[in-house]
Amino acid sequence: MNEKELEIVKSTNKKSKPQTDQISFGKTFTDHMFIMDYEADIGWNNPRIVPYEPITLDPASMIFHYGQTVFEGLKAYRSEDNRILLFRPDKNLQRLNLSSERLSIPAIDEESVMNYLKQLVSLEQDWIPTTEGTSLYIRPFIIATETNLSVAPSQSYKFMIILSPVGSYFSGGIKPVSINVEEQFTRAVKGGTGTAKTAGNYSSGYQAQAKAKNEGNADVLWLDGLEKRYIEEVGSMNIFFKINGEVVTPELNGSILNGITRMSIIEVLNEWEIPVVERKISIEELYQAYADGELEEAFGAGTAAVISPVGELNWLGRKMVINNNQIGALSKKLYDEITGIQTGKLVDSHQWILEV
Amino acid sequence: MNEKELEIVKSTNKKSKPQTDQISFGKTFTDHMFIMDYEADIGWNNPRIVPYEPITLDPASMIFHYGQTVFEGLKAYRSEDNRILLFRPDKNLQRLNLSSERLSIPAIDEESVMNYLKQLVSLEQDWIPTTEGTSLYIRPFIIATETNLSVAPSQSYKFMIILSPVGSYFSGGIKPVSINVEEQFTRAVKGGTGTAKTAGNYSSGYQAQAKAKNEGNADVLWLDGLEKRYIEEVGSMNIFFKINGEVVTPELNGSILNGITRMSIIEVLNEWEIPVVERKISIEELYQAYADGELEEAFGAGTAAVISPVGELNWLGRKMVINNNQIGALSKKLYDEITGIQTGKLVDSHQWILEV
Repeated sequence: MNEKELEIVKSTNKKSKPQTDQISFGKTFTDHMFIMDYEADIGWNNPRIVPYEPITLDPASMIFHYGQTVFEGLKAYRSEDNRILLFRPDKNLQRLNLSSERLSIPAIDEESVMNYLKQLVSLEQDWIPTTEGTSLYIRPFIIATETNLSVAPSQSYKFMIILSPVGSYFSGGIKPVSINVEEQFTRAVKGGTGTAKTAGNYSSGYQAQAKAKNEGNADVLWLDGLEKRYIEEVGSMNIFFKINGEVVTPELNGSILNGITRMSIIEVLNEWEIPVVERKISIEELYQAYADGELEEAFGAGTAAVISPVGELNWLGRKMVINNNQIGALSKKLYDEITGIQTGKLVDSHQWILEV
Repeated sequence: MNEKELEIVKSTNKKSKPQTDQISFGKTFTDHMFIMDYEADIGWNNPRIVPYEPITLDPASMIFHYGQTVFEGLKAYRSEDNRILLFRPDKNLQRLNLSSERLSIPAIDEESVMNYLKQLVSLEQDWIPTTEGTSLYIRPFIIATETNLSVAPSQSYKFMIILSPVGSYFSGGIKPVSINVEEQFTRAVKGGTGTAKTAGNYSSGYQAQAKAKNEGNADVLWLDGLEKRYIEEVGSMNIFFKINGEVVTPELNGSILNGITRMSIIEVLNEWEIPVVERKISIEELYQAYADGELEEAFGAGTAAVISPVGELNWLGRKMVINNNQIGALSKKLYDEITGIQTGKLVDSHQWILEV
């Protein structure tokens, strides 16, 4: 694909930027956004950066009816020496295309889109907050726009990138959370869409989330859809356990997300020569490890929180309190390492950082 | 809920109506649409019929990211004596609320919405085509509209109804179709969203559909997500088999849709004292019945086609040709009965018809 020339229309009506300590996740957006269109006969076309504004769609647009849509999430960080850093953005665009394949959405050209993304972030660089733990959240997404109620792949799409400054995920320091092991609802199953970042995977979890919250938990630990036995993900993060000195995370089995924080943690642990294994792990095995005093740490891993310690797991009335409900030493060390690389404080020995 | 007063803004720029024989499904829409809004603090409000027009949404609206949306599909028919008939619309609105519950969307007041729907169809009655097999397709749907990238239920929604004249599903008479038994992809699993009419259930099937079409089939027969063994649905229809004089359809197991055509067929068969059973049926059992010469008929059942005969099933290289690839006598009789009631040609002894 030849890279199309990028048109830039600058906003003449700049918004005021929020105080870092007053930012709620995902509610504030910057002055510009990126859009590109797709039509079946000409492919992706008309890439442009324009003022952030509402989009107008026919009510019969396929996105409103059949869920043909994919998205990604990544962050831009401002380093202490004022550089703009992206963390493994190539992995996000690769995964976007894998998600699109599952949803029968045409692939984007990763190289061109990386260039557009960098230009958008560069234009909006004054929006990157600088306080500890803050960043500019980047949301690329694709929606099906054909006006047609037939149940079939759309012949037209919009690819967009919007940017949102985000505050510290853990205001007042990292706090371990309480998680409910979900026994009734299912997130995903092999042959379904669980490995894709697509809309339907998220709203389908709201009922389980609400149940967990009603019982005093922050989120849900999903079990596999087949036997309701093997651990899959926590909320919308991957999950890790430290059991008797070894780190265990569920293997990529066709229903969990191939998380970029997850893959980075595994690479860091290998580098540190800390045993880490990707395998099936059942909730019974986890409970037995807990009962035997061998469940040392547990944490979720994802772009939003990077590392989110699990202090308590509730499974059918049985409560597992992990590491006295404190963040574990390894969890903390991984958090410091990954966020240190992301923000340019630590040496990027893996070449994970792309400077804008 | 008190019924809110309906505002009506009439279109001043009427479209020309298509020739009945030139209508593609779901691409032509009438002059008006219904909209109603929801905000968490005031509930559903501002019901209105307005000219059909695009809607404008922030790119961070939740519908574009997390798939919190539900829909329904039903039809208005013009009878020979010029009445406007709806087929069991109360069942559609009941099911819409069940779907909404699964997706954590606030319920609508079924009685008020039925009234709004009737007023919209009445206003657009000149759009109901009159040729044999045609109707006015009615698409109610709800989308999450809060501007927020948090993975949580939206605090605002739009409920809309749009109308589309549809031609005969089977131009040139009913033709049995060839169906591929899908072994790789999964439509739904217990604890998931399979019983809800929600967007993510549909686009997740596109890859399997494309594979089936590449192999010369019209659509997919879905097996259960757990064992890939028990028959669930065909395309986006329920499925029925006539085996050795008895009609068998998969039981409502928590992953298949509770189809309104499906439930009507079961009631008609009971009335006719033809044996009908809702139970698990495996693809092996079906193949054995075929091999034994006992598989007499097979058909999909749904709002779009009413009855869609299956002439050929392809399962792992094994081909089952059903009833010599002709529509079966019972399939035809059911088609005539249901469509006869829907169009007012036959007596509505079940009180299924609502006259607008």
